[in-house]
Amino acid sequence: MRDLLPAEKAKREHALAVIRAVYRSHGFDEIEAPALEDYDRLHAGLGGDNEKLSYSVLKRGVGPDRWREAEDVAALADLGLRYDLTVPLARFYATNQAALPAVFRAVQIGPVWRAERPQKGRYRQFVQCDIDILGEEGPIAELELIGATSAALVALGLEGASIRINDRRVLNRLLLTWGVAVESASQALITIDKLDKIGVAGVVDELGEQGVDTAGLDAAFGELATAGWDLAVDPPAWLDVEAYTELLALKDALPEVELVFDPTLVRGMGYYTGTIFEIAHPSSTSSLGGGGRYDGMIGRFLGREVPAVGFSIGFERIVDLLPDRTTGTVATALLHDADVPAAALLAAKREVQEAGGRVRLERARKNRRVQLEVLAADGFTHVAQVTADGLGPLRPLS
Amino acid sequence: MRDLLPAEKAKREHALAVIRAVYRSHGFDEIEAPALEDYDRLHAGLGGDNEKLSYSVLKRGVGPDRWREAEDVAALADLGLRYDLTVPLARFYATNQAALPAVFRAVQIGPVWRAERPQKGRYRQFVQCDIDILGEEGPIAELELIGATSAALVALGLEGASIRINDRRVLNRLLLTWGVAVESASQALITIDKLDKIGVAGVVDELGEQGVDTAGLDAAFGELATAGWDLAVDPPAWLDVEAYTELLALKDALPEVELVFDPTLVRGMGYYTGTIFEIAHPSSTSSLGGGGRYDGMIGRFLGREVPAVGFSIGFERIVDLLPDRTTGTVATALLHDADVPAAALLAAKREVQEAGGRVRLERARKNRRVQLEVLAADGFTHVAQVTADGLGPLRPLS
Repeated sequence: MRDLLPAEKAKREHALAVIRAVYRSHGFDEIEAPALEDYDRLHAGLGGDNEKLSYSVLKRGVGPDRWREAEDVAALADLGLRYDLTVPLARFYATNQAALPAVFRAVQIGPVWRAERPQKGRYRQFVQCDIDILGEEGPIAELELIGATSAALVALGLEGASIRINDRRVLNRLLLTWGVAVESASQALITIDKLDKIGVAGVVDELGEQGVDTAGLDAAFGELATAGWDLAVDPPAWLDVEAYTELLALKDALPEVELVFDPTLVRGMGYYTGTIFEIAHPSSTSSLGGGGRYDGMIGRFLGREVPAVGFSIGFERIVDLLPDRTTGTVATALLHDADVPAAALLAAKREVQEAGGRVRLERARKNRRVQLEVLAADGFTHVAQVTADGLGPLRPLS
Repeated sequence: MRDLLPAEKAKREHALAVIRAVYRSHGFDEIEAPALEDYDRLHAGLGGDNEKLSYSVLKRGVGPDRWREAEDVAALADLGLRYDLTVPLARFYATNQAALPAVFRAVQIGPVWRAERPQKGRYRQFVQCDIDILGEEGPIAELELIGATSAALVALGLEGASIRINDRRVLNRLLLTWGVAVESASQALITIDKLDKIGVAGVVDELGEQGVDTAGLDAAFGELATAGWDLAVDPPAWLDVEAYTELLALKDALPEVELVFDPTLVRGMGYYTGTIFEIAHPSSTSSLGGGGRYDGMIGRFLGREVPAVGFSIGFERIVDLLPDRTTGTVATALLHDADVPAAALLAAKREVQEAGGRVRLERARKNRRVQLEVLAADGFTHVAQVTADGLGPLRPLS
């Protein structure tokens, strides 16, 4: 966890305002669920490995007598801090669906908490920024999500992103042609998901250890790495043609997005059922976000099927790529000595504010040069002196 | 705790954007501290009654063996959720002061958590919205805080607010003239703070129970209730003239603010040392926020004195007073049947988006009239039909 100082906080709030405006214009509605959810719901098996990283909140009004008898955390904790925004969305939808449109396009932006081991670039509290479409089984859901996400990246100034796309059905058929039994498929997918980290040789070794016949697998991965959008005419045996044709249609409908077919893309979460996608950007070695279709999950708290697709952008990584924010507006520092009456200071501040922009009063320091440098670095564009006689002339700071 | 549905969330985010813009233009810098703070810091006696309402987070990696031995919550919990933004600010300033301006004008906006008993209008998670000036001992701090807060209320459309103001020194002298011993003063202040709830008779009774000589107190409260800004010429014996003169100077420097002298204003928190103030508004029976000078507290984590004044607006109450937000921008609903191809839908959406504003695709329902009514209530201003042939004419929705 960390403190956000003024420059970093201003950059983040600006980025969030840009993202909110784009998502809103694309027809998404922002909602908010509480940061605390029921312990049982957070541990219902929908959060994957994140469940183990969740913070639990001590039951109130329970003292040492009960602690002594407690056998597990559930006896001590009834609430926990959310570790993602997807489990809360499923609960939110189950609670409020009567008040929501039949096809609900949700934006959720807020902190989540995970008890990660301390390491560079990972925080225990971080912001997630998700859009989801619930209730739409057709591909328009994927198109709207990918279109809105791409537009948000462009609006943030992150041109040049590409989106890798795949479908769980492509992976399923691939594993079938490799002779992987259905009951071993999820283990094999976890291995293929490590391709970026351990390379083809590492993945083939690990699949071998799982009993997969690895003869020809090196070559197969070579073929997968070069697979593009030209497979429809003479489809290879490993390709699920129906899923591929649907992905191709997404690509054709999104000419402004660089959509890359990647048959080895897995995405970690077990709940995905169809399309999956991930943002790649030349300035980052890790993905800048991702998502996919997860038709089975939302219905878990409802007792009926609800089609769902989501796209989560990696807000913390994206903010790190953005340049420090210069406000772009006029900002004036009013320097004064300690003996200038408060009423005179306030009157000067008011006078400058009426002309528009940001105004900060600041006591003049002996080292004027350093003070002006710091103010310029803080985004101030003008400076003026205030004395008991009033406001002096405004001078540009550069 | 509660879910925020789209209309409510849009209203809140709009209000926050307005508040942020005003505070920023007044020279305040937004910062953010983590929602979780150390258990010990949250229970250091700075949070008053709120400490008892705080949620504690179970230590990780500690199991039944340790639970059995635990004598108090501190043995089970090392972190807790913040119950206000003032204790985190004190910690933030102690950690980061080297990177902050000598006079630091902070904005903090974020959720806090209190395990309140469920009751109407009280939530266990709610947003606080504070501005504080650290490092300024002169009255310019009060002037900037009150000026910025008033400007924020006006920008939100809440004209007509007044600000009741007092000084702890006025209360101290008042109690002295009533013969209240210094060691009984804080108990007497708690009683006077109940004036709104239990009336003069109730307060006088309770003071009597505390051993205060109540002869003439009814009349004294009558005089206090009518005290205004005309006491300087012929000051009554109970008045701390120095403090009153300073308050008068604040009033004169803030002609745009309706500043009301209220010698019975207490403000609950024990850490206030000087000026105290509270927002009153004709449309609300309870205060819309308040604050004051608390020179002793920030230094607690630093080992040196840091003058400080803060003003917290009651965000949840203020939002309740605001009208439901109409977006003020063009918003178009594109109605379509289920069989329109996704690519045609996306192309139509893009076409309308390029003209600006918000666009939502929606499947046409049988009861068109109800559907259009719901869309209009959702802030949509235009509607058009999309078919396989493309986008139909845009019609205004009213």
